[in-house]
Amino acid sequence: MKPVQLVVVGSIGLDTIETPHAKKNEILGGSVSYACASASFFVPTGMVGVVGTDFPEPCVDVYRHFGINLDGLQKCHGKTFRWSGIYEQDMNNRRTLATELNVLETFMPELPDDYTRAPFLFLANIAPQLQLHVLSQVKSPKFVAADTMDLWINIAPNPLRDVIAAVDLLTLNESEARLLAGEKNLVRAAKKILEWGPKYVIIKKGEHGAMLFSENDVFVVPAYPLEQVFDPTGAGDTFAGGLMGALSEWGHVNEAALCKAMGYGSVVASFGVEDFSLGRLQKLSRTEINHRFAAFKRLTHFDAVEVR
Amino acid sequence: MKPVQLVVVGSIGLDTIETPHAKKNEILGGSVSYACASASFFVPTGMVGVVGTDFPEPCVDVYRHFGINLDGLQKCHGKTFRWSGIYEQDMNNRRTLATELNVLETFMPELPDDYTRAPFLFLANIAPQLQLHVLSQVKSPKFVAADTMDLWINIAPNPLRDVIAAVDLLTLNESEARLLAGEKNLVRAAKKILEWGPKYVIIKKGEHGAMLFSENDVFVVPAYPLEQVFDPTGAGDTFAGGLMGALSEWGHVNEAALCKAMGYGSVVASFGVEDFSLGRLQKLSRTEINHRFAAFKRLTHFDAVEVR
Repeated sequence: MKPVQLVVVGSIGLDTIETPHAKKNEILGGSVSYACASASFFVPTGMVGVVGTDFPEPCVDVYRHFGINLDGLQKCHGKTFRWSGIYEQDMNNRRTLATELNVLETFMPELPDDYTRAPFLFLANIAPQLQLHVLSQVKSPKFVAADTMDLWINIAPNPLRDVIAAVDLLTLNESEARLLAGEKNLVRAAKKILEWGPKYVIIKKGEHGAMLFSENDVFVVPAYPLEQVFDPTGAGDTFAGGLMGALSEWGHVNEAALCKAMGYGSVVASFGVEDFSLGRLQKLSRTEINHRFAAFKRLTHFDAVEVR
Repeated sequence: MKPVQLVVVGSIGLDTIETPHAKKNEILGGSVSYACASASFFVPTGMVGVVGTDFPEPCVDVYRHFGINLDGLQKCHGKTFRWSGIYEQDMNNRRTLATELNVLETFMPELPDDYTRAPFLFLANIAPQLQLHVLSQVKSPKFVAADTMDLWINIAPNPLRDVIAAVDLLTLNESEARLLAGEKNLVRAAKKILEWGPKYVIIKKGEHGAMLFSENDVFVVPAYPLEQVFDPTGAGDTFAGGLMGALSEWGHVNEAALCKAMGYGSVVASFGVEDFSLGRLQKLSRTEINHRFAAFKRLTHFDAVEVR
């Protein structure tokens, strides 16, 4: 097996999801599932996460299908993390119905030795204390990104600030950026967060795309337009996983690379929402990603061809 | 004076606007004011509209400042149209407080003879019956666009459908597209509207940019990111005016031209919202537009430079 270039830590869950189209019970989810599957199209990816003894073997097979390195996957006594939510009128608003932490409550992520030398690290959404614990184990990574959510902004602001201070890139969604910075305008919110340490901030806006901020620059990418969104769960993790996968494949990071990687992240995320769980990604090929990336370029570069 | 290349019909109003930043009384507004001012940076533009005898002369001077051809501006006995609205918590939601149609109620737009030969026509937001009346007076225009609003969708659906069937391009905002098509998903909503006649549909999404739809293609442009939006009133009209101005300057329309014109429309609109009424546009130069257009390209073309 090729050495792991990107390590991702995050949650693994069995999700029960209701959308206006359908309801699904206990399907494979969690930030690290989406992020690793997405990144695996670009680079050998190692997963750090925990499942309970009830975790279905077919779900492990799904991970294997993507070629994800599972040396960092722990199986602990107890039940796997569960989340259930409902998307009401539209796909932009969801409501959490229930959360059972189960094995996540006592999870202590330990990195296999070769993971500690991986050049790229993505701290996907999980408690900031666990993100810090993983961060402390890696040896001189080239680039570290972290994602978070409103829950940690509300209940663990101090460890979260430590994470933010220690990473190169923070990704979070629109309402989380406003909540974290206490600032309605996204440009000003991002500038405030940049002052806390990271070199880059990416604000994810779902169907409206994403924005990248650095000290002196802003970059904006729309979302790939879709006629039908079956399930937006995990879209942000898929986006970030694809972005980190692309960066890891290229092996270095600068603004041009980040912009292009946002394009790849958007494209993989646009496939991801076409089905529940990892259903669409399981059928996806790198060729399809490359084709949609080319199409995405045509449909967003407003001055790519000469007007005549 | 150079012959008018673009004719715009729409409303002229004295707006009373309250935002979280300030309140302004009876400032110059209306769809044709914003659209003509914006288009005037690109091409000789003729205005078709009506004001009352109370219309302040300094407002006419504002139109003259932009070099707008005012042969189609009528002054009628009575009061000028008035609108007042408030932007609450954020700049994306506004509430109309009062509307007084006044001279708009009996307005019958008559085109000066040379306007009838203009190659480009923009039917900015006004009653669809009036849009049709203007349309009936032009001789073989090259390209006709129309804008509308929720009010006409609700109270004048049939004349509006006649407008939609007769134009090349319909522009409308996100919620209006959903309302008009009876369809939540914007891609499907646009496809439905395209079936009613126009070759192109543009859905304006405010701070999230705009989408262009044709029979087989979709094109997406984000909005130019701003730290501070003083007053979003008229942003959609400014966008459409800049877009039509750019197309008129080039003299022909195809998808590449429309995409690039959306870039120009976005840029002029991004200046427009930096102050109330036409305040910012009055100080704007074509050089500033070109500079921001170049910057906008850099900050949205995610694969414009090679990653190394």
